Amino acid sequence: MRAYLFGVWRTVAQRYGFVEWEAPTVEPTELYLKKSGGELPTQLFRFKDQGERDISLRPELTASLGRMVAACHLDYNKPLKWYEIGSCFRYEKPQKGRLREFVQFNADILGEGSEGADAELLALAIDCMRELGFTADDFVVRVSDREVWLRFAADHGIPEERTPDFLSVVDKYERDRPEVCSEKLAAFGLTREELVSFIQNPPAGISPRFDAVLADLQARGLADYVQLDLCVVRGLAYYTGLVFEIFDKAHSLRAVAGGGRYDRLVETLSDGSVKMAATGFAMGDAVIAHLIDSCPAARALRDAALQPNTCDVFLALAAPEMRPQMLRVATSLREAGLRVDLPLAPAKLAKQLRHAERLGATYAAVIGAEFPAVELKHLASRTSQQLQAGELAAALTRQS
Amino acid sequence: MRAYLFGVWRTVAQRYGFVEWEAPTVEPTELYLKKSGGELPTQLFRFKDQGERDISLRPELTASLGRMVAACHLDYNKPLKWYEIGSCFRYEKPQKGRLREFVQFNADILGEGSEGADAELLALAIDCMRELGFTADDFVVRVSDREVWLRFAADHGIPEERTPDFLSVVDKYERDRPEVCSEKLAAFGLTREELVSFIQNPPAGISPRFDAVLADLQARGLADYVQLDLCVVRGLAYYTGLVFEIFDKAHSLRAVAGGGRYDRLVETLSDGSVKMAATGFAMGDAVIAHLIDSCPAARALRDAALQPNTCDVFLALAAPEMRPQMLRVATSLREAGLRVDLPLAPAKLAKQLRHAERLGATYAAVIGAEFPAVELKHLASRTSQQLQAGELAAALTRQS
Repeated sequence: MRAYLFGVWRTVAQRYGFVEWEAPTVEPTELYLKKSGGELPTQLFRFKDQGERDISLRPELTASLGRMVAACHLDYNKPLKWYEIGSCFRYEKPQKGRLREFVQFNADILGEGSEGADAELLALAIDCMRELGFTADDFVVRVSDREVWLRFAADHGIPEERTPDFLSVVDKYERDRPEVCSEKLAAFGLTREELVSFIQNPPAGISPRFDAVLADLQARGLADYVQLDLCVVRGLAYYTGLVFEIFDKAHSLRAVAGGGRYDRLVETLSDGSVKMAATGFAMGDAVIAHLIDSCPAARALRDAALQPNTCDVFLALAAPEMRPQMLRVATSLREAGLRVDLPLAPAKLAKQLRHAERLGATYAAVIGAEFPAVELKHLASRTSQQLQAGELAAALTRQS
Repeated sequence: MRAYLFGVWRTVAQRYGFVEWEAPTVEPTELYLKKSGGELPTQLFRFKDQGERDISLRPELTASLGRMVAACHLDYNKPLKWYEIGSCFRYEKPQKGRLREFVQFNADILGEGSEGADAELLALAIDCMRELGFTADDFVVRVSDREVWLRFAADHGIPEERTPDFLSVVDKYERDRPEVCSEKLAAFGLTREELVSFIQNPPAGISPRFDAVLADLQARGLADYVQLDLCVVRGLAYYTGLVFEIFDKAHSLRAVAGGGRYDRLVETLSDGSVKMAATGFAMGDAVIAHLIDSCPAARALRDAALQPNTCDVFLALAAPEMRPQMLRVATSLREAGLRVDLPLAPAKLAKQLRHAERLGATYAAVIGAEFPAVELKHLASRTSQQLQAGELAAALTRQS
């Protein structure tokens, strides 16, 4: 299953001109305390190594990316379009769509602050979903703009230092019971009704950035997948502008993916020495796996890709004394790039052919006393042809 | 670099009919204390998680494999031919060819105890090296047989419980100073001369298993890569039969790969409930990277594979008002499976084309006021042709 997801992520990222990078699995804990905020620091797999250094298993990839880019950005042309697929770790109660070790696909564009970068990134996220077999009936990209909320907070007299707390009330607005939400908002001199009305009927043109991105996606034919939804704030402290989350249409699962602009993270991680605009998103393997299970078209694509077909041809041995000849044939077929399996120990021919079928081999080539004459069986159709061993590679390459 | 290695490992493993599996990164520490012996337990990245469990980052993959196979072997046809590529962690002084976080390629055949499995595994290891561009002039597979040493120990009256200590003297024989080695051997009533003579002139037929494997590799045309070398013992306690290590011919580096038969590990890990013959090897990313650097043919293959070519076509925008048209073209080319990049923000045409060249794009398609007429430039040859936007996908697919 993961191999299938990895393949789709990699294929789509490459179509968008993204290149792969790699982060270390273990990082100094400080890296995460410095930047993330939110609940992340409490969820770290954190420990002291034998040299008494405070280290953590990476809970996400963006901090490593920011640090790496701050250190070596002069070596690359901007904008950077980078992706990574790797394991991340969070110490929390395992639950549906959340595991302690999970895999994330991260894609980021650094060194470009314009809405063109936001749109390119959203298009990539949408195309990952489309490539997995999902349509606009299955998922929606909810896009929001933190700038809108910063202006809202300023307009309502919320002091700057309390704005992060206000954002976290908005972040929890959908999940909190109304009376809890009301109570939290009262502390900011706001009523829940004001908030609801602002979210449900945002003034036209409230986010010029969103409007520009929507126009871009419209031109790409991808506008149907996105909607402005100010509910989305994203938990992490480092986001600065446009943020988004992908949800299943029924909203029955956690977010499938999430991300946004983080224009100040590289600066923070480099202690102010490197300023670089950035936007990125992450998609984990757990929620998307549930969503694939629940969508027939996506499930069919996945099942087709996961059909066991590990083998183009199985070399069956009908005459034990021909084992050296069989091994020589195996080498030459493998040198021709074919996927070849063979019996490792003597076994009856019928048993060998059964094993070949279970492996999902396309062909079995029966090597017997008549060698170099060989019988090539197409296992699914149960048809066969006679040919010479020397013709096998060409015949199989033509037919596979 | 890693992406290149991963690609080669994966390709060759698939040609041999191996399927990919995945191990968790974090395991209970007990798993490694139970099975490995040797120096591994002192090198663990070991810590207590927030639930006070004693856990470790995996130092290798075989223990996870053994446990997994013991638990679920009934779900699969034997023999299992499984491979994995994953990060491993050892807390030791970083040095040439040894890093604290490194990647291992593991390949294992489980459920088959015959020499056919040993030979198939050795052939896979050899073909990984050949696929990387190495020849018999560059590397050698030193094969040994622990059974030979067990018999040697018995013949020389070494009691069974002291045999592991004796094996570790043999393991260090090449590295220890002669007087240190002599002193260690004296404790077993042996002289260094006896050992040297046995290693340098092993009696013919001393290892029937090695002879059978050599005959098999001979039939495959791969015998030139291996030699019997009783020096090799392998540090880990769990090996039982044939063991091997791959070295550069000049023996100037640590082992490139190592492995062997471990017929009792699954039994140990399942507390005796599952018996399963097994053989496997691991190749890390660090030593092989040094070896590639030092071998011109291997270096050339790697450099060719790593040529930056992240992009089939860069869409350059000569007329800003045509941006929506360019975005639409990008979508359709990406839908056709092409790797497409584009300017995320307005820039002069010359700058865009320079960026396209730096990306290693094969083509640039210039979209200007004449759209849907488009100029398709082949960047390396600086030739160009005029065509309609609707013809781009077909033209690029044909030429790429």
